[in-house]
Amino acid sequence: MKQAKVLIMMGSRSDLPAMEGCMEQLDAFQVPYLVRILSAHRTPEAVLELSKEAQSQGIQVIIAAAGGAAHLAGVLASSTVLPVIGIPMQTSALGGMDSLLSTVQMPSGVPVATVAIGKAGAKNAAILACQMIGLQDPAIQEKVKVFKQEQAKKVLADSIYE
Amino acid sequence: MKQAKVLIMMGSRSDLPAMEGCMEQLDAFQVPYLVRILSAHRTPEAVLELSKEAQSQGIQVIIAAAGGAAHLAGVLASSTVLPVIGIPMQTSALGGMDSLLSTVQMPSGVPVATVAIGKAGAKNAAILACQMIGLQDPAIQEKVKVFKQEQAKKVLADSIYE
Amino acid sequence: MKQAKVLIMMGSRSDLPAMEGCMEQLDAFQVPYLVRILSAHRTPEAVLELSKEAQSQGIQVIIAAAGGAAHLAGVLASSTVLPVIGIPMQTSALGGMDSLLSTVQMPSGVPVATVAIGKAGAKNAAILACQMIGLQDPAIQEKVKVFKQEQAKKVLADSIYE
Amino acid sequence: MKQAKVLIMMGSRSDLPAMEGCMEQLDAFQVPYLVRILSAHRTPEAVLELSKEAQSQGIQVIIAAAGGAAHLAGVLASSTVLPVIGIPMQTSALGGMDSLLSTVQMPSGVPVATVAIGKAGAKNAAILACQMIGLQDPAIQEKVKVFKQEQAKKVLADSIYE
Amino acid sequence: MKQAKVLIMMGSRSDLPAMEGCMEQLDAFQVPYLVRILSAHRTPEAVLELSKEAQSQGIQVIIAAAGGAAHLAGVLASSTVLPVIGIPMQTSALGGMDSLLSTVQMPSGVPVATVAIGKAGAKNAAILACQMIGLQDPAIQEKVKVFKQEQAKKVLADSIYE
Amino acid sequence: MKQAKVLIMMGSRSDLPAMEGCMEQLDAFQVPYLVRILSAHRTPEAVLELSKEAQSQGIQVIIAAAGGAAHLAGVLASSTVLPVIGIPMQTSALGGMDSLLSTVQMPSGVPVATVAIGKAGAKNAAILACQMIGLQDPAIQEKVKVFKQEQAKKVLADSIYE
Amino acid sequence: MKQAKVLIMMGSRSDLPAMEGCMEQLDAFQVPYLVRILSAHRTPEAVLELSKEAQSQGIQVIIAAAGGAAHLAGVLASSTVLPVIGIPMQTSALGGMDSLLSTVQMPSGVPVATVAIGKAGAKNAAILACQMIGLQDPAIQEKVKVFKQEQAKKVLADSIYE
Amino acid sequence: MKQAKVLIMMGSRSDLPAMEGCMEQLDAFQVPYLVRILSAHRTPEAVLELSKEAQSQGIQVIIAAAGGAAHLAGVLASSTVLPVIGIPMQTSALGGMDSLLSTVQMPSGVPVATVAIGKAGAKNAAILACQMIGLQDPAIQEKVKVFKQEQAKKVLADSIYE
Repeated sequence: MKQAKVLIMMGSRSDLPAMEGCMEQLDAFQVPYLVRILSAHRTPEAVLELSKEAQSQGIQVIIAAAGGAAHLAGVLASSTVLPVIGIPMQTSALGGMDSLLSTVQMPSGVPVATVAIGKAGAKNAAILACQMIGLQDPAIQEKVKVFKQEQAKKVLADSIYE
Repeated sequence: MKQAKVLIMMGSRSDLPAMEGCMEQLDAFQVPYLVRILSAHRTPEAVLELSKEAQSQGIQVIIAAAGGAAHLAGVLASSTVLPVIGIPMQTSALGGMDSLLSTVQMPSGVPVATVAIGKAGAKNAAILACQMIGLQDPAIQEKVKVFKQEQAKKVLADSIYE
Repeated sequence: MKQAKVLIMMGSRSDLPAMEGCMEQLDAFQVPYLVRILSAHRTPEAVLELSKEAQSQGIQVIIAAAGGAAHLAGVLASSTVLPVIGIPMQTSALGGMDSLLSTVQMPSGVPVATVAIGKAGAKNAAILACQMIGLQDPAIQEKVKVFKQEQAKKVLADSIYE
Repeated sequence: MKQAKVLIMMGSRSDLPAMEGCMEQLDAFQVPYLVRILSAHRTPEAVLELSKEAQSQGIQVIIAAAGGAAHLAGVLASSTVLPVIGIPMQTSALGGMDSLLSTVQMPSGVPVATVAIGKAGAKNAAILACQMIGLQDPAIQEKVKVFKQEQAKKVLADSIYE
Repeated sequence: MKQAKVLIMMGSRSDLPAMEGCMEQLDAFQVPYLVRILSAHRTPEAVLELSKEAQSQGIQVIIAAAGGAAHLAGVLASSTVLPVIGIPMQTSALGGMDSLLSTVQMPSGVPVATVAIGKAGAKNAAILACQMIGLQDPAIQEKVKVFKQEQAKKVLADSIYE
Repeated sequence: MKQAKVLIMMGSRSDLPAMEGCMEQLDAFQVPYLVRILSAHRTPEAVLELSKEAQSQGIQVIIAAAGGAAHLAGVLASSTVLPVIGIPMQTSALGGMDSLLSTVQMPSGVPVATVAIGKAGAKNAAILACQMIGLQDPAIQEKVKVFKQEQAKKVLADSIYE
Repeated sequence: MKQAKVLIMMGSRSDLPAMEGCMEQLDAFQVPYLVRILSAHRTPEAVLELSKEAQSQGIQVIIAAAGGAAHLAGVLASSTVLPVIGIPMQTSALGGMDSLLSTVQMPSGVPVATVAIGKAGAKNAAILACQMIGLQDPAIQEKVKVFKQEQAKKVLADSIYE
Repeated sequence: MKQAKVLIMMGSRSDLPAMEGCMEQLDAFQVPYLVRILSAHRTPEAVLELSKEAQSQGIQVIIAAAGGAAHLAGVLASSTVLPVIGIPMQTSALGGMDSLLSTVQMPSGVPVATVAIGKAGAKNAAILACQMIGLQDPAIQEKVKVFKQEQAKKVLADSIYE
């Protein structure tokens, strides 16, 4: 197995359907990744440990998806120098406003790179991770560039209605 | 020094003015307490350690005050069987709605007993802690009862206007 | 029948499905409880009476679930020295934001220990109640500890994806 | 002293400045009123008692001002057939959104006639009370009519700028 | 046909299902009413005319239901000395928060007695109207009293679970 | 005096400071305007009359500023074929969210062209009005074009920091 | 094909169902229009180009529909002197509050004429566009007038219930 | 002058005070940066040009601060493969909720790495940028690590109160 460059963490197995687009996009960019399902509240030390070991195991970016009082990304960010991307999961009661504020409103000193609520955010987390990795890996940066060009081409090709 | 029964934690020294009422109320009930100012995001392990050791050191209730993406109460709650009370601090941008949702919307399995935003919550956290401790300490329960009676008396004495 | 230690109150019979997890969790901890369905607005005196008598009948914690302008927990808290846990019910118009603010924003002097909106809150209210009761009942505290350990074990056992 | 027709209740003495317009407007309409400052949470039974006795003492409308988890109007409404008007007080953390939702989102069967947050609501509560009393008191109804006409005249007289 | 005492206005025929409880409750109280479906924005003058004529036609209370930028109650309130009750309709995009704020946040001088969003509000508007009419009609006031007692009895009879 | 092309309406004289930028911008474009301060709730018929007569008096665009349950723009829009621009005024309790939703969420059939809350919206309303008038008045359209170019130039000239 | 007077832009093909009412209304007014589906974020230059060329191609009003961080209307407005109407699309997570704020809260100097969230806004955008075009095209202005009269007639004809 | 690695963009000169912490933090990390103040709405093409040229000029990360309908980060993200960090500026009307949603709710395909509203976000944007640059620049990564350690040390040293 190739060395994983991205660690994807989810707070719960029920986040998997919303997160599929994240993994598909990394597959499309051929960026190897690890998926771990761990809860910041049920297994805090396992989360901290993963976070602290991530860098030495070759991980370059951590992606964390959680909902409600979403602390997963913040806890990960507390214990690593790697950039951490947070995806706020949509919630049934408050639509994901709780997840968004719990993820993005981090205190001075410990940033979480927050993307959109739910599926759009899941896919975008993968792209953002590759933009970061691309800073030192021209092949991946090139893939992001091509993806953006093709995305634009598709939009343009399909832009006329009637 | 008497054995502390309550551990008060704050995410930042700037939370102290809002938290004064909490400490004053515990003083009024003569319940000894410890104050620690630690950040769930800057010193996660020190927070976890305090949480895990709290019970063996005689602490019965933990009170945690934090603002923004307020993870402090949640992180403490992850590592103790003691009840954890969360006080959402008021914030300048969103008034404390971010702190409230980050504190109260905990996932199934890890409750945080959340009180009101800001100063009212700070005082109420002290009362709630004493109501909990009062379950096994009749003297403290009696003090809460007297406090409530006096509070009601004061309201009644002052209820007529003009 | 064993002496009930928890009094569960709901504002309406329609809250029962959301509250099942609360009762199941108390059953799992073998903590006996009473369920009463009474409305703070339709039967205020019956609610006050229950609240005032709860302690003398051996109740240690009161759990109250209500939605919308959710006053049930607050009314109960007004008339007892027992800790009161409030569960904001999810609502169709505002998702439960109304229930949450009506439950948590209690004035100085009368705390309600508020948990998450809906089902997560219902289960957590049971756990929180047992954490409080556990302060003077080591057997129950032990059960909460075992529950947390098993919960963590389950998460860890199921943490690897693919 | 003339028989009071309106009972004005406030949750706290700190609500007085915001409530001045309410009393001034009733004075302007020469409608006698009583003011009581009582807390639904600190003195629930005194509140219920006032509510139950209000009708027999000649009160026709009850006005209740409260902030945060504002239960005062709802508790009053639970125990009277008189119409109850609720004024949500402005709050520092959430601007009064908490007070508004706690006052207006009453369950089926127990209405509270809610007016605007803060000072506009305080004055409007007085006018609304007089509109209700005016249903059986033509002199008061006439006063409201004249007030509305004069209000319109003032607006018209002052409508041209430059 | 008996003289209508309540004028029920809706902004749109699509509000009818949510408003059924309002009409049923008035039927239960045997209070005759008129229903008119008119839009403050599409037929402003017809709305103003109805409002101005209502009193002379024996109407005592006006109930107005509208959603979104809900101006119906406010426009009616501008042109009558009768009390106007506003029901904010639930909306698909914002849940009814738009309707609520558009109805309740009336400026000083022109109150709208606002009730809860949607169906609970619809039923409560009928009860509130009868509480107002009851100020000068002891038979209707008695009916509201009986309704409240029976409502409480039903709750009490059904309060025990298991 | 030149024929006014824009009718500026405000719900209250207290809106004048926030509206200054609107009038200054129209002055800068040399577009003559009328200012009227009238309340949709206190003088509904005067508002409707102005709206109905506006077109025959040469007005081309109506600008309406109001706060809270802001019905002014909507009432004006109900009675004219001229485009109506709504400016939601900032409010102390809810920041202007009430004004915004009351202005923008108009029902199908009666649009209000809503701009930003407060001062930015006031200035933008003037620009938007001139963009509309510019459709048939090339001199005004040219002025808007020049304004935009100069605005861009100023930004570019001032874009480098340090 | 007749010269298009309105340019309708959508951020995504998935906006088409919500936008149907916009096109139908323009068809009903016999105002020719162009539809282009382009993303401000995926094809920014194509969007800017369309915006800059619109005027020279005879377009008089631009309508833009987008959801989430809805930048389409704002980007179009940056590069044209034509009035730009923005329709905030409803979103699954936040109901469209994100789209609304991203569309309406434009900075001083660059207005977007924002209409209601979703389908009501889509139809209203068409009417508003025709109100603007009607300033220099009496035939279209007449059509809007007739539409409004018929709309009022329909409401009046259908205003009596039972 | 050393080659800039970070491009800091602000929508307005008024954002400078809130952004000082960003520049100070980059200075502390000795990471050279460029500051440009350009508006996505007033100078869209200059913004796009900067974005497209950034990479070829050695920029590795773009930071964008904007308020209200904050499109700056999104427009920049549309035209570069470099990671773009967005800082939502606090706003007087809505506290920055408008800026936050306009920045974070980006559509699938074009991520913006969003940090907290206002000053905390400004400082965190600098740290996040250095975490990204640190992926290929061990010296900068080391500086971030030292910063985090010292931050933790300071917290720990100052953690005891009384």
